Amino acid sequence: MAKLTILVLNGPNLGHLGERQPEIYGSQGMNCVPDQVNALLGEDAKDVELVFDQKNGEGELIDRLEQAREEGVDGVVFNAGAYTHTSLALGDCLAWVKIPYVEIHISNVWARPEKIRHTSFIALHAEGVIAGFGIESYALGVAALVRKLMAGA
Amino acid sequence: MAKLTILVLNGPNLGHLGERQPEIYGSQGMNCVPDQVNALLGEDAKDVELVFDQKNGEGELIDRLEQAREEGVDGVVFNAGAYTHTSLALGDCLAWVKIPYVEIHISNVWARPEKIRHTSFIALHAEGVIAGFGIESYALGVAALVRKLMAGA
Amino acid sequence: MAKLTILVLNGPNLGHLGERQPEIYGSQGMNCVPDQVNALLGEDAKDVELVFDQKNGEGELIDRLEQAREEGVDGVVFNAGAYTHTSLALGDCLAWVKIPYVEIHISNVWARPEKIRHTSFIALHAEGVIAGFGIESYALGVAALVRKLMAGA
Amino acid sequence: MAKLTILVLNGPNLGHLGERQPEIYGSQGMNCVPDQVNALLGEDAKDVELVFDQKNGEGELIDRLEQAREEGVDGVVFNAGAYTHTSLALGDCLAWVKIPYVEIHISNVWARPEKIRHTSFIALHAEGVIAGFGIESYALGVAALVRKLMAGA
Amino acid sequence: MAKLTILVLNGPNLGHLGERQPEIYGSQGMNCVPDQVNALLGEDAKDVELVFDQKNGEGELIDRLEQAREEGVDGVVFNAGAYTHTSLALGDCLAWVKIPYVEIHISNVWARPEKIRHTSFIALHAEGVIAGFGIESYALGVAALVRKLMAGA
Amino acid sequence: MAKLTILVLNGPNLGHLGERQPEIYGSQGMNCVPDQVNALLGEDAKDVELVFDQKNGEGELIDRLEQAREEGVDGVVFNAGAYTHTSLALGDCLAWVKIPYVEIHISNVWARPEKIRHTSFIALHAEGVIAGFGIESYALGVAALVRKLMAGA
Amino acid sequence: MAKLTILVLNGPNLGHLGERQPEIYGSQGMNCVPDQVNALLGEDAKDVELVFDQKNGEGELIDRLEQAREEGVDGVVFNAGAYTHTSLALGDCLAWVKIPYVEIHISNVWARPEKIRHTSFIALHAEGVIAGFGIESYALGVAALVRKLMAGA
Amino acid sequence: MAKLTILVLNGPNLGHLGERQPEIYGSQGMNCVPDQVNALLGEDAKDVELVFDQKNGEGELIDRLEQAREEGVDGVVFNAGAYTHTSLALGDCLAWVKIPYVEIHISNVWARPEKIRHTSFIALHAEGVIAGFGIESYALGVAALVRKLMAGA
Amino acid sequence: MAKLTILVLNGPNLGHLGERQPEIYGSQGMNCVPDQVNALLGEDAKDVELVFDQKNGEGELIDRLEQAREEGVDGVVFNAGAYTHTSLALGDCLAWVKIPYVEIHISNVWARPEKIRHTSFIALHAEGVIAGFGIESYALGVAALVRKLMAGA
Amino acid sequence: MAKLTILVLNGPNLGHLGERQPEIYGSQGMNCVPDQVNALLGEDAKDVELVFDQKNGEGELIDRLEQAREEGVDGVVFNAGAYTHTSLALGDCLAWVKIPYVEIHISNVWARPEKIRHTSFIALHAEGVIAGFGIESYALGVAALVRKLMAGA
Amino acid sequence: MAKLTILVLNGPNLGHLGERQPEIYGSQGMNCVPDQVNALLGEDAKDVELVFDQKNGEGELIDRLEQAREEGVDGVVFNAGAYTHTSLALGDCLAWVKIPYVEIHISNVWARPEKIRHTSFIALHAEGVIAGFGIESYALGVAALVRKLMAGA
Amino acid sequence: MAKLTILVLNGPNLGHLGERQPEIYGSQGMNCVPDQVNALLGEDAKDVELVFDQKNGEGELIDRLEQAREEGVDGVVFNAGAYTHTSLALGDCLAWVKIPYVEIHISNVWARPEKIRHTSFIALHAEGVIAGFGIESYALGVAALVRKLMAGA
Repeated sequence: MAKLTILVLNGPNLGHLGERQPEIYGSQGMNCVPDQVNALLGEDAKDVELVFDQKNGEGELIDRLEQAREEGVDGVVFNAGAYTHTSLALGDCLAWVKIPYVEIHISNVWARPEKIRHTSFIALHAEGVIAGFGIESYALGVAALVRKLMAGA
Repeated sequence: MAKLTILVLNGPNLGHLGERQPEIYGSQGMNCVPDQVNALLGEDAKDVELVFDQKNGEGELIDRLEQAREEGVDGVVFNAGAYTHTSLALGDCLAWVKIPYVEIHISNVWARPEKIRHTSFIALHAEGVIAGFGIESYALGVAALVRKLMAGA
Repeated sequence: MAKLTILVLNGPNLGHLGERQPEIYGSQGMNCVPDQVNALLGEDAKDVELVFDQKNGEGELIDRLEQAREEGVDGVVFNAGAYTHTSLALGDCLAWVKIPYVEIHISNVWARPEKIRHTSFIALHAEGVIAGFGIESYALGVAALVRKLMAGA
Repeated sequence: MAKLTILVLNGPNLGHLGERQPEIYGSQGMNCVPDQVNALLGEDAKDVELVFDQKNGEGELIDRLEQAREEGVDGVVFNAGAYTHTSLALGDCLAWVKIPYVEIHISNVWARPEKIRHTSFIALHAEGVIAGFGIESYALGVAALVRKLMAGA
Repeated sequence: MAKLTILVLNGPNLGHLGERQPEIYGSQGMNCVPDQVNALLGEDAKDVELVFDQKNGEGELIDRLEQAREEGVDGVVFNAGAYTHTSLALGDCLAWVKIPYVEIHISNVWARPEKIRHTSFIALHAEGVIAGFGIESYALGVAALVRKLMAGA
Repeated sequence: MAKLTILVLNGPNLGHLGERQPEIYGSQGMNCVPDQVNALLGEDAKDVELVFDQKNGEGELIDRLEQAREEGVDGVVFNAGAYTHTSLALGDCLAWVKIPYVEIHISNVWARPEKIRHTSFIALHAEGVIAGFGIESYALGVAALVRKLMAGA
Repeated sequence: MAKLTILVLNGPNLGHLGERQPEIYGSQGMNCVPDQVNALLGEDAKDVELVFDQKNGEGELIDRLEQAREEGVDGVVFNAGAYTHTSLALGDCLAWVKIPYVEIHISNVWARPEKIRHTSFIALHAEGVIAGFGIESYALGVAALVRKLMAGA
Repeated sequence: MAKLTILVLNGPNLGHLGERQPEIYGSQGMNCVPDQVNALLGEDAKDVELVFDQKNGEGELIDRLEQAREEGVDGVVFNAGAYTHTSLALGDCLAWVKIPYVEIHISNVWARPEKIRHTSFIALHAEGVIAGFGIESYALGVAALVRKLMAGA
Repeated sequence: MAKLTILVLNGPNLGHLGERQPEIYGSQGMNCVPDQVNALLGEDAKDVELVFDQKNGEGELIDRLEQAREEGVDGVVFNAGAYTHTSLALGDCLAWVKIPYVEIHISNVWARPEKIRHTSFIALHAEGVIAGFGIESYALGVAALVRKLMAGA
Repeated sequence: MAKLTILVLNGPNLGHLGERQPEIYGSQGMNCVPDQVNALLGEDAKDVELVFDQKNGEGELIDRLEQAREEGVDGVVFNAGAYTHTSLALGDCLAWVKIPYVEIHISNVWARPEKIRHTSFIALHAEGVIAGFGIESYALGVAALVRKLMAGA
Repeated sequence: MAKLTILVLNGPNLGHLGERQPEIYGSQGMNCVPDQVNALLGEDAKDVELVFDQKNGEGELIDRLEQAREEGVDGVVFNAGAYTHTSLALGDCLAWVKIPYVEIHISNVWARPEKIRHTSFIALHAEGVIAGFGIESYALGVAALVRKLMAGA
Repeated sequence: MAKLTILVLNGPNLGHLGERQPEIYGSQGMNCVPDQVNALLGEDAKDVELVFDQKNGEGELIDRLEQAREEGVDGVVFNAGAYTHTSLALGDCLAWVKIPYVEIHISNVWARPEKIRHTSFIALHAEGVIAGFGIESYALGVAALVRKLMAGA
């Protein structure tokens, strides 16, 4: 079986994880994600290739997702950051590129006090949503998505 | 190390999974959860004891959570069903019994059209929220919660 | 032809009809319903068996409706009382047990001044809604439901 | 006893029932109403005279109701169509002509997705409201109104 | 000086004043208006010709106001009834026919409990608004309008 | 017959009429009010005594109205200015001192663009409301109130 | 091929174009529409017959559209004026008569300050919407509709 | 004089006072209530019998209040907890069982940040409302209610 | 121990209790408060000095509270009347003068129909809130506050 | 006469027309626009030069419009995609670059169910708005804009 | 050149700066303002006369601003405190006295959590708004206003 | 002491100040800022280095602020233009880069009629907000920020 390529894509202000507000986002960077994925997927992890990227711009993220469609990426684990709550354009993009994706948040956004963080333009076509487990949210998203893709394969 | 006891608790209308609206909730029942937990936790699964329960009543669920506190349950994976969106009392209960818990939904509630399903009285004190992966949402919740409890142990 | 079993189910605060606020709910109790059904259905009434029940709890009503599904009840004439306006869980229950039902109110809820009484979580899957005819609302609901079930038989 | 005259009055877009969107309004026209009334009222039906009318204009409907008041009509079974949700003037009219009336809808308007169809300017002074039973809603309305008028006679 | 022609125009449900809900609208009909105008305008009343009309239809009222423009009517004292609160089209009409007018209400609409009666599509281009003085509201409107037209003549 | 004493009371920013924003409030001061009252009341004007006052403070206006109650004032023509739209306390005051009053505005407040100016805490117990006729609004208010008091005398 | 009959239908206050508020609606009347259609459709214009009508009443417009359905009109270019924003009944009418239509506005309604003019009860089933090009909006609507009908022919 | 029986009734999550979030609810349990009642009522306390109960379920609380009506309880001091803000059914129950009651809260609910805690479905028929005095709120409620019942006796 | 000085402060329209709308506010004046305090506090009442004041003005009430801070008043029992619901400035004042206070209402404001009376700018820093017990609300407030101050002394 | 340069500018997710969700956006790409423009403008088309561009980024679109201003572009036919509904910055840009433009949508955005698609930050300064005619919307926009520019030339 | 007189006016609860909640308002009093003004205006400061005043009452502030108009004050630096957010009357006052003014806040009101503090009735006619720089906000306001007045002189 | 580096950063549509809508934004460009800073800071100005930049893109502004953090910029004077009101992502960025900043607007945004311009996603962590002084707003922002930084140095 060909390997599954999973794009782990971060949106605005997520390029400095570990440095950014550790009381909210934790002190880990993205480099611990592969080990967490191994722990959750076990043997299956060897059939998964993770690609990481980060963009601060709404249009750049659309560009990146359109590029992923061209490249035949199998799935996206997407933390759209603040654009989750304000970008109808990203929601439209995910609707048309039709790559299976999981919406991810590091913090439990529904437990944060600002009402706007309880809404999502991204969730409509997502396979699922995972929030609040710190950096491990990414690995949980990869595991959930890979298991779903493999079950459907 | 003592085993971790995890209560997997279902709320109203979740007693007949597999029979209920399969186009939304899938055709699997809860009996596939232990295997999925094994797949995600690997070796660690042997240190976890799962306890399952289901109640249709809001007060019964509060009774059950208070009982879990008496019994020293280590964590709860909780699908409160429709009470997620209407029960301030359940939210108050989770705030005071102080057992770590994960909010779980079978369907991606943020992709469903009714606005009320985008709100949660339960999320405020949750370790995290997982939605949309069908019955596998429970296993992902158990795995995320156990890994968090073990990391903190 | 087998008799049609119709469950006439009352929700909270409806166990003492005739005693409760007669200026709103009238001074009749439920015992006049069978005669009114006879008057409206004529000959057809002999093929109908009425079963009456009442519960004050939201979870108890879900339990009762799930039991009706087990028993093969043919239709429900349901006055959910105040839960009509607050219980998403009862709405979800009626969506999945899939027994044909009619939503009933004794008073004309749309003529009462509280805005919340103009909303319904119950109406979405109802065959129809009848409100405002006092205790006769139940008989009109039985008649409408039986005629619909017989036409479809 | 003098016969009771019941005006069955239809509002905008209800002049072509049977032709209009049958998936919502059914394929029956108004001509089946008298038979349905006979079935529901039995012997009492011979003391009832039904008068049918339909108007597309808001002002024309007010004119018609004021004329009914002049003629001494005993009751109105009124389907105000879309004016139910937009016409304060029709609500004011029904408040002052003081003819007992029943609000009728062919479809279950509270189960339709547009929020505006869950509101009514007409319900305030209605004896009751019946919705969702197709063309049979008219006959149920006639039966309910006649039984109420006879009980009060 | 030529006489001033003032159209006193009534909207829906205002054709039976004196008969309609006297607890709100009083027991007087329109026939007492000329005397009240005489009392308020004194000598000036002889230079004023009053024309009375009433329509139940929104479109008929627009027709009537367009006709008034053709006829060169000098001013309108307008009680639009319930259309005051729902008819953008009448507001647009008054904006373009450009006849000076006064908005009139028999009852004090801002003291009535329904919020919709506190709004007006008619007020935007009015010379002024008078409400709450029973039938005398019309005479006050005529007096205010005539005095304003004479001052500007 | 004893003379009727009418208090013409102005609220905040209304102490400098004629100087204040003449494009909205006109260039006349309060001193033309008595003549306008004479024109509208004719002979009856000799039985009316006008008392004028103005206060910028919400509490001062309540003091003044309570004083009017002590003095046995027969009626109040009240322009509460901006407090019309913000002062629940003035509304409560008018409810309890129980002196008949008319709510007055110089400009047509319902034609002004700010939504807050379309609301009134003062209207609830008013005999009537008059707005938009410039300084003449006061005289129209006096005339309407006096005629009502005399009719009821 | 038979000629296409296009009904160009105007709603309230649109019977006097050219005279009505030229700063908003321009100084042209409807008589320039045929030439503009010729310019936009070129040769195709000879296969199109334009029928013009105008009604001030909501019910009259429903009558006219139902008549168009009887006559087999091929398409409607409809400027519903203020009813665009208030008439659910016209929206229901267009839904059931099922004649292809284009929603037209002379001014750019979304650039006007009143929020109510940004809504439409008419747009739901329209082939398209054109606003803001003055009288030329009608010709653009005819051209768009005819080209669509011919493409589908 | 017969003793007055006062039911002190607690709703959801109030069965473990003293253990539950002491920063909000204090560290006292219900057992200090009788002494506080003695302090406030003095001699009158000997004519009062206190009955304590607690239920987590909405329906159970309705059952309990209906039972209190059967038993002839003289008054209820009721802390409905979170159901205060979500249960229309409890509000309806209190309206019909017609036992005089006082609404009680341990914390000052109007000082808590969640808007939903500023609303009450319970207050409508209450003799009064007392909030924020910790466990002493119950004793103040008993004292206020007893003094009112004795004054009216 | 030094006596505790408690300022019992009334806001707008509360200077004439006993005369003002007795159906809402009762027929008692403030002079019965000391006796009621004695009944509730018993022996402790001799250590309490009550000071009474009333102001109609929002600024005057702020002046009075700032003066109380200068004088070292120990606590305030405050009925802010209508300013409860409109005065952010009074709320700010109570936040900074930092005298312990109780919010008092004579009527049960949450049972009154106007939504604005269900809100409070005053509650945020209050020790507690008492409403609905007529004039006795003041004595209950004094008792609750004194007991709290003595417990903390 | 110099040729008119018209920029046909597409926003986010509009770079792959024909591939993107054909059930909403149709199966045509932008390459059919010039022929459609020829059909609508006839002879006049030869005086028009079309320039096409597309950007996914909000800032890039502002850059592009500022560049168009530098280049002296005569008009813009602009489909801002999802930014239509979220970008105040693009609205501000169009207000200041002052190039005449037409707002274009491929689908009838007012007929789509999401309320946010019924709003526009772009419409305020547009010459007009055209929506719902598929790819032909662009050609209709070019034709309308060119005819307006030529008429004004 | 004559000196510029600038009134530095404080509203409710601002008479005790330095004592009031130093965590929000800082520990400085108004007496440091002149030195800060000197630092910012340099040489120009000698042409400026500062007048300080403070009032707790809404009406008193209107009185003071009307007096400033009489005295020919050149500009006002105004901290209206809580009235900023609730007083339409003060906004009306500033509109008519027409003295140039700057709106000042000590704290950054837009960073405070209460939504009402993000609104202003005062800003509409202000030269500008300055918030968040503690007591220095006053000096910045004086400097900005003086420089603007001098530039316009 | 090392010089303070202040980044003066402009957002969308602010690259052409002086050319853009001078009736709102004035006719000055950014080149007058240094002189205004000198005037306000006097001697202190020599210890300040100003760096100017402008970006139209939301992501580009985040990039620029992250770069400023890398470079150790001491403070930011930030005019985010329309993104002030729509960009949660910029607000999140300012929260984490933790450079002290002042929010600046050229016009008095709270005096502009669009409600959206009265909101800010940027204000939450700002040292302060300055609006309405034209280009001088930037210099006032620099002066306020520098004085604050120096006071804290």
